[in-house]
Amino acid sequence: MANHLVIMAGGIGSRFWPMSTPQCPKQFLDIMGTGRTMIQQTFDRFGGLIDIEHVWVVTSKNFAELVREQLQGINPQHILLEPCMRNTAPCVAYVSWKIQAEDPEAAVFVAASDHLVISPREFQRCVAQGLDFVCGGDRILTLGMQPTRPETGYGYIEQGERIADPTLETHDAGKKGRRPSAFASLLSPIYKLASFREKPDLKTAEEYLETGRYTWNSGMFLWQVSTIVSELRQYAPEIAEIMDKIAPTFFTVKEQAMVDKLYDTCPKISIDYAVMEKTQLAYVMPAEFGWSDLGTWGSLHTLTPQDDDRNAVIGDGVKMIESEGCMVRMPQGKQVVIQGMKDMIVSEHNGTLLICQLSEEQRIKEWH
Amino acid sequence: MANHLVIMAGGIGSRFWPMSTPQCPKQFLDIMGTGRTMIQQTFDRFGGLIDIEHVWVVTSKNFAELVREQLQGINPQHILLEPCMRNTAPCVAYVSWKIQAEDPEAAVFVAASDHLVISPREFQRCVAQGLDFVCGGDRILTLGMQPTRPETGYGYIEQGERIADPTLETHDAGKKGRRPSAFASLLSPIYKLASFREKPDLKTAEEYLETGRYTWNSGMFLWQVSTIVSELRQYAPEIAEIMDKIAPTFFTVKEQAMVDKLYDTCPKISIDYAVMEKTQLAYVMPAEFGWSDLGTWGSLHTLTPQDDDRNAVIGDGVKMIESEGCMVRMPQGKQVVIQGMKDMIVSEHNGTLLICQLSEEQRIKEWH
Repeated sequence: MANHLVIMAGGIGSRFWPMSTPQCPKQFLDIMGTGRTMIQQTFDRFGGLIDIEHVWVVTSKNFAELVREQLQGINPQHILLEPCMRNTAPCVAYVSWKIQAEDPEAAVFVAASDHLVISPREFQRCVAQGLDFVCGGDRILTLGMQPTRPETGYGYIEQGERIADPTLETHDAGKKGRRPSAFASLLSPIYKLASFREKPDLKTAEEYLETGRYTWNSGMFLWQVSTIVSELRQYAPEIAEIMDKIAPTFFTVKEQAMVDKLYDTCPKISIDYAVMEKTQLAYVMPAEFGWSDLGTWGSLHTLTPQDDDRNAVIGDGVKMIESEGCMVRMPQGKQVVIQGMKDMIVSEHNGTLLICQLSEEQRIKEWH
Repeated sequence: MANHLVIMAGGIGSRFWPMSTPQCPKQFLDIMGTGRTMIQQTFDRFGGLIDIEHVWVVTSKNFAELVREQLQGINPQHILLEPCMRNTAPCVAYVSWKIQAEDPEAAVFVAASDHLVISPREFQRCVAQGLDFVCGGDRILTLGMQPTRPETGYGYIEQGERIADPTLETHDAGKKGRRPSAFASLLSPIYKLASFREKPDLKTAEEYLETGRYTWNSGMFLWQVSTIVSELRQYAPEIAEIMDKIAPTFFTVKEQAMVDKLYDTCPKISIDYAVMEKTQLAYVMPAEFGWSDLGTWGSLHTLTPQDDDRNAVIGDGVKMIESEGCMVRMPQGKQVVIQGMKDMIVSEHNGTLLICQLSEEQRIKEWH
C-alpha cells in the first residue's frame, strides 16, 4: 500500500498579478524568493513521505511543460492535462481513476500546488497521521486549518462529533496487543465532518471562531483511492460514467484525445459538493502548521518576515526609507529605493510593475 | 562674423537619480520622453541660427564618447574635455580662447546642456535679438528668465537702468537712413546688469517678484569672443595666463596633455563672479520662453503635461488609477499600474526604480 501525492495545479492566480500571469500562474513562481517555486515547495514538503514516482499532477494543457521543467523526475504519465476547467470533482475523478488503474491499494494525499505552509515538520506529522487514519478503513479525511483570525476570504468546515480513538492503533489494527506507540500522545483529534460553509461575512466568521468548532477549508484531502472512486460512483455517477469511458485508454497514446473529447461533458462541480457533503465517510482533522492559500498580496505580507515598520520585503536590492506596512516583491538584484510609502504593494515581475494600496488588492485582477 | 554655440555639458545631475547617473547624467538622457536627449534638444533649439560646424561642447573627459554619439557631425576639435571641474570661468575661458584662435570675429551663445525651453520660437527670437545686440558693440548679454513664482532654487539677476534703444538699428549701425525693421516692435527691453543675487529665501524671493526688477539667472550668455577674452584678461588674469600657455597647442595632438597638466591650476570660480559682476559691459535681457533648469523631478512635474489629477506621466505603458499629483517616468513599453498614490515620484531607469514623495526630492541624492 503506497502513498501517492496528487498536486492540483490548474489555477490561474489572477489576484497575484503582475507576478502571476495566465502564461505562468502563481504555482509556477518563486513567490517567496526562496529559490523554489510554489509547486516545487509543495512537492518538497512531502520529502521522505512520498516518492517522486508516486506524484501526480493535474493541470491545464498549457502548463504541461512548466510541470515537467519544475518537477523533474516525475513520470510523464502522471501529468494529467485538463483541456478545460471543470472545478475539482472531475479533476479528482480523473486522477483517482488513473491511480486506481496503476495501484488499486494507493493511499492518496490531494494538495493544492500554490499554498504556503510555515512549519513543514508539523505538516509532515499531520500528513503521516492522516495517511495512517485513512489506511485504517474507508475514510475520507480533510485537513481543517485552525483559524487564527475571523478570515472572510476562506470557506469553513464545521466539525461534528469527535471520534473516539484517532491513535496509531487504528492503522495497526492487525497488531493487537502491542503497546500504543509514544507517538499516540502527539496525535491530533479527528472529528466527523458536519458541513461545509461558504466564505462568511465578518460577523459570521467571528461567531465561527468563538465556537471553536470551525476550521478553514484548505482543500487538502486524504483517502484510499478505492474509497473515493466508490464514493464518486455513488454520489457523482455522471462523472464516474465519463471516467469509465476514458479509463480503457489510460497510459496509451489515445488517452489525451479521449480526455479532450469527453472532459468538457463533465459537470462543473467541486469535490466538496459532489462528495464530501454527501458521504458518510468524511472526517476533519484540525491542523496548525501555519497555512495560507497565498491568495492575495496581503496574505503574502502577513506571512513574510517583516521589519520594524511592518514592511515585508522580498528582493535583495530594495532599500526602504520612511515607509511602513508595505509588501514589496522585486526581482533579485534589482536596485530599488522606496521612500514615504504606507500600506502599499510594490511588485515587479517580468518587467511589469504594480504599485497599489494593500487595501485594494481584491481589485488587482481588474487592472490588467 | 559667424554665430557660434557653446554647450556646457559637465554637470552630473545628482538630484535626478535614478535617471541621471555619474556614468550618464541628465544632459545625455531623453528625460522628457521625446526621442531626443537634453543636449540634443539644446542643439536642436538653435536650428537655422547656428550651424553644427560652429557648435562647441565643454564637458568632462568621461563624456566625450556620449557627446560624439549624440551630436553627430560635430567637429571633434570642438569637444573640449575638462580633466576636472573648475566651475564656469575656466570653462568659458578655455572655449573662448579656442574659438578666438579659429574665428576671432565669432559671436557666441553660451548655454547649459540640460535646460528645458517650452517655446522654441520665442527662444529663437531672443537669441536672434541677443546676437544682434552683442554684435553691435563690446557687450556681454545675459538672458534673465522672467520669474513666474517666488522660486528659491534659482539665483536672481537685478536689472539696472534700461538702455535707450535695443532695436535692430544697433546692429545695422552701418546702414543709417534705412527705416527701422518691423521686427523692432517685437524686441525685448534690455537693461544694464546691476547685480547677481544668490538663491534667496522665500520672503526675499517674494520681494524680488514684487519689484519687477529681478529675473532668474539662467546661465545663458552672449558676447563677441573678443569681448569676453578681453574681459577675462582684465578681471581673471590668473586664468588668462593659463589659457595663454595652453593656446599654442590648440588643434594639435598636444592640446589635451597640456589641458590635463594646467587646467587644475585654475581657480574654482564662476563666470558670474569672475567677470559679470565686475565688468562695465554687462546687460540683461528678460526673456519669457518657458524655461527650467530641470534641476529636480518637481520641475519636470511642473513642466510635463498633466492629466486631470495633476499626474505627469512619461512612458506609454503607464496606467494611473485613483492617483494624483504624481510624477511618473518609466521606460517606453514598460507595463505599469499605479493605484492610490498621491504626490509621489515613480521613476525607473536602467533597471533601477525610485519611489518617493515629491516633497522629499532634494534628498534623492542621499539615497543612492
